[in-house]
Amino acid sequence: MADDLGWQDVSVPMHTEATALNAQWHTPHLERLAAQGTVLTNGYAAAPVCTPTRVSLMTGQMPARHNVTYWTLHHDRDTSKNHPRIAPPAWSKEGLQPGTPTLPKVLRDAGYRTIHAGKAHFGAHGTPGSNPSHLGFDVNIAGHGSGAPSSFLGTHNFSAAGKQMANTPDAKPGRPSVWDVPGLDAYHGKDMYLTEALCTEAINALDAAVNDGVPVYLYFAPYAVHTPIMANAKYLQRYEGLHRTEAAYGTMIESVDAALGRILERLDHHGLANNTIVVFTSDNGGLSAHARGGTPNTHNAPLHSGKGSSYEGGTRVPWVVRWPDVTEPGSRIDTPVITQDLTPTLARAAGAVFPADHPLDGADLRSVLKAGGVPTRPLVWHQPHQWGANGPGIEPFSAIRDGNWKLLVFHDGPRVELYDLSEDLGESNDLSVERPEMTSQMLQQLRRVAIGTGLQMSIDKATGTPIHLPSGTGGAQ
Amino acid sequence: MADDLGWQDVSVPMHTEATALNAQWHTPHLERLAAQGTVLTNGYAAAPVCTPTRVSLMTGQMPARHNVTYWTLHHDRDTSKNHPRIAPPAWSKEGLQPGTPTLPKVLRDAGYRTIHAGKAHFGAHGTPGSNPSHLGFDVNIAGHGSGAPSSFLGTHNFSAAGKQMANTPDAKPGRPSVWDVPGLDAYHGKDMYLTEALCTEAINALDAAVNDGVPVYLYFAPYAVHTPIMANAKYLQRYEGLHRTEAAYGTMIESVDAALGRILERLDHHGLANNTIVVFTSDNGGLSAHARGGTPNTHNAPLHSGKGSSYEGGTRVPWVVRWPDVTEPGSRIDTPVITQDLTPTLARAAGAVFPADHPLDGADLRSVLKAGGVPTRPLVWHQPHQWGANGPGIEPFSAIRDGNWKLLVFHDGPRVELYDLSEDLGESNDLSVERPEMTSQMLQQLRRVAIGTGLQMSIDKATGTPIHLPSGTGGAQ
Repeated sequence: MADDLGWQDVSVPMHTEATALNAQWHTPHLERLAAQGTVLTNGYAAAPVCTPTRVSLMTGQMPARHNVTYWTLHHDRDTSKNHPRIAPPAWSKEGLQPGTPTLPKVLRDAGYRTIHAGKAHFGAHGTPGSNPSHLGFDVNIAGHGSGAPSSFLGTHNFSAAGKQMANTPDAKPGRPSVWDVPGLDAYHGKDMYLTEALCTEAINALDAAVNDGVPVYLYFAPYAVHTPIMANAKYLQRYEGLHRTEAAYGTMIESVDAALGRILERLDHHGLANNTIVVFTSDNGGLSAHARGGTPNTHNAPLHSGKGSSYEGGTRVPWVVRWPDVTEPGSRIDTPVITQDLTPTLARAAGAVFPADHPLDGADLRSVLKAGGVPTRPLVWHQPHQWGANGPGIEPFSAIRDGNWKLLVFHDGPRVELYDLSEDLGESNDLSVERPEMTSQMLQQLRRVAIGTGLQMSIDKATGTPIHLPSGTGGAQ
Repeated sequence: MADDLGWQDVSVPMHTEATALNAQWHTPHLERLAAQGTVLTNGYAAAPVCTPTRVSLMTGQMPARHNVTYWTLHHDRDTSKNHPRIAPPAWSKEGLQPGTPTLPKVLRDAGYRTIHAGKAHFGAHGTPGSNPSHLGFDVNIAGHGSGAPSSFLGTHNFSAAGKQMANTPDAKPGRPSVWDVPGLDAYHGKDMYLTEALCTEAINALDAAVNDGVPVYLYFAPYAVHTPIMANAKYLQRYEGLHRTEAAYGTMIESVDAALGRILERLDHHGLANNTIVVFTSDNGGLSAHARGGTPNTHNAPLHSGKGSSYEGGTRVPWVVRWPDVTEPGSRIDTPVITQDLTPTLARAAGAVFPADHPLDGADLRSVLKAGGVPTRPLVWHQPHQWGANGPGIEPFSAIRDGNWKLLVFHDGPRVELYDLSEDLGESNDLSVERPEMTSQMLQQLRRVAIGTGLQMSIDKATGTPIHLPSGTGGAQ
């Protein structure tokens, strides 16, 4: 589970054709995985920001249901940016907490050693859920309540203080930061990039489990390529000539790919490759509204916008799965799939069972991965929050994709947009007026999902009441 | 699981308003169940004829996938009626067979006593699957490879020979018929209607399980109201004034309702009502093309056509669920649901697990039953066969419903029709030409399901090759 890695941030083509961005980045190990497995070209993250997607993987539920609809940090603080006219509803700003069934919990019950390595960001600081060990993981490597590291460098002790001292050697050490990465003291002061340290620790835990003869669920979440964008110096040469930030970004991507390569090699070494499901994906679309080099909002082209947005750039991400005897080597599948599908898929493959009263929104993808068809149920995104950067579609919204149609409801108004992704992947031609019956149909579908999941719309500041989700014409019968 | 019971064949309103047919029929025990549970107003059978729907309940799969796309009888004979231009594909005319995971199998593995009472019709005569005991049932009461009884009367020994002797006392006894109901010898010669005999036996088996302290899955499938339409004399008085066939039909409905009442009473008696899920549904729409009194093809009004048809009359059926602590007493839910949804729903509620490599098309309905929303995935019907009666939509077809839209593909041609069920429940106004983009969208969805399930189209007799499923315009990207 890469962090903030966009649809075009890999060298494996995710679009119908290879793009200039595919040529710019370098992910040879992902290319190998794709050649041995399946590329899901319509693969989505559950949300355009980190925590909701990660909680969806843990719970198998869409954010509208699990209600962790935005990123978390402190248990008592809403991280949403202020919006002039609307406010978030009563969302779970504490994040995921013990008591909720999770994928690692049910896998552990089924006999698996469950290993967390890297970014957790499931529950807020000051709550039990900030520790992955309380959420079903037997092993926790460097995970806590923050969704980014103070620094990616071992020479900085992965800390704000270390970074400050490195930049201004005569400064006094600052106080510990909530963003400092915990648990990697062995690498402090060393010339070691965070992704590599995490990978080494993850492989050690994997080796130990193999040695103990137990099956393994390894959730490898390398913090990269989230901000701060900091270069892994050993890969920099390849990106000479790029904007400095983009060059650093390229090395972050390559650090993730190198870790993937090491894990794949370790599976080969243990003779486990033929008996292991490997999934590569990301928690939201690529950062593009700020902090990047080049033109803002173009980093996920041909998709529109990026992280935080309701448009495709916000949620469509790389998806590659290698599943021996299920995926066809080198195949490409265009059935839409989404983060929470992985939960029942992996649970079921492992013989693990969620409690009967825990609703699972995700679908078992086994037959999709084998044959490419079904399920075709609509996918729904819901973020009743203003994210902290400006860009197209970055505002409180709900959205639904059904077949090739996508409908967006911006809560401020509310306003509706409709796109035919088969003709207009870049979402530039709003058809909501031209196609009233399709707009109505999609609104009805969204409404049904809203009822079933308990989806909470944004609050109108003027009245203190929830914004009304527009209903399609034509009542259900 | 009633047999051939149509959407309007009960006194509980399934439509938005009570109809003249609701007033005509008498199902007080179903009214009680509805008052204590939930009416699913958009409840469907998996297919417009018996066997495919019943196999869908057993397997959790749509007929396009399990490939028992038509009713079965003899292992070596295709029961499809001849069509002048097209023939069935290589469907599973032997029906369901041991080896395939089934709902009773996984429930049995989870510790349940699994009881079959009544019509099986899962596998053809001459195959192991003709016996429900080979498909996961611990107890088999009167089930075999036939989908109808020779007679509903104990005085006929539920046999063709007995019926013949009763009608012409001086006739020589005929040979045993494949339709004779097995295993009810204790009731032979007695004034006992088949539904009542089955109910008595089912309750005996239920009592025994309760006595043994084991949980129970009771599949009660009362043969009624399938042909032969034969009156249960004790209820006839209520239907005076109706066409003679319709009066007899009314007593068949009432026999099913009375059995439901006895089972509910028995659950109360055992103190199990608060710990038991009760589902009432039917295997296909009401018979209307032949063998009924009154005007053909009107018996499911406001729905169009009936059993065997692609139109709503063929597949929409009564659905009532009572699930303590899940369903809201007296509620009505319009989310579309279908037979195969019951399979994962009941399995999961019981803590039973299907093998990981067995695809389940059905959705866990628990959250739908609780709140009314999700899932909204499209429903697909597929019957590449000519059924044995003439009526609207009774020809080889595939169909898909998504939201309130329904698209039909008649394989002969092929021809396409599109209906907006929210405006046109009776499917009289084909919008396929007027709404090309919706037609295209629905065809794409159907195509995806076809790929994923291995759906087999009818064969063009002229060329010997499969009919082409029309593809929507606009490729997936």
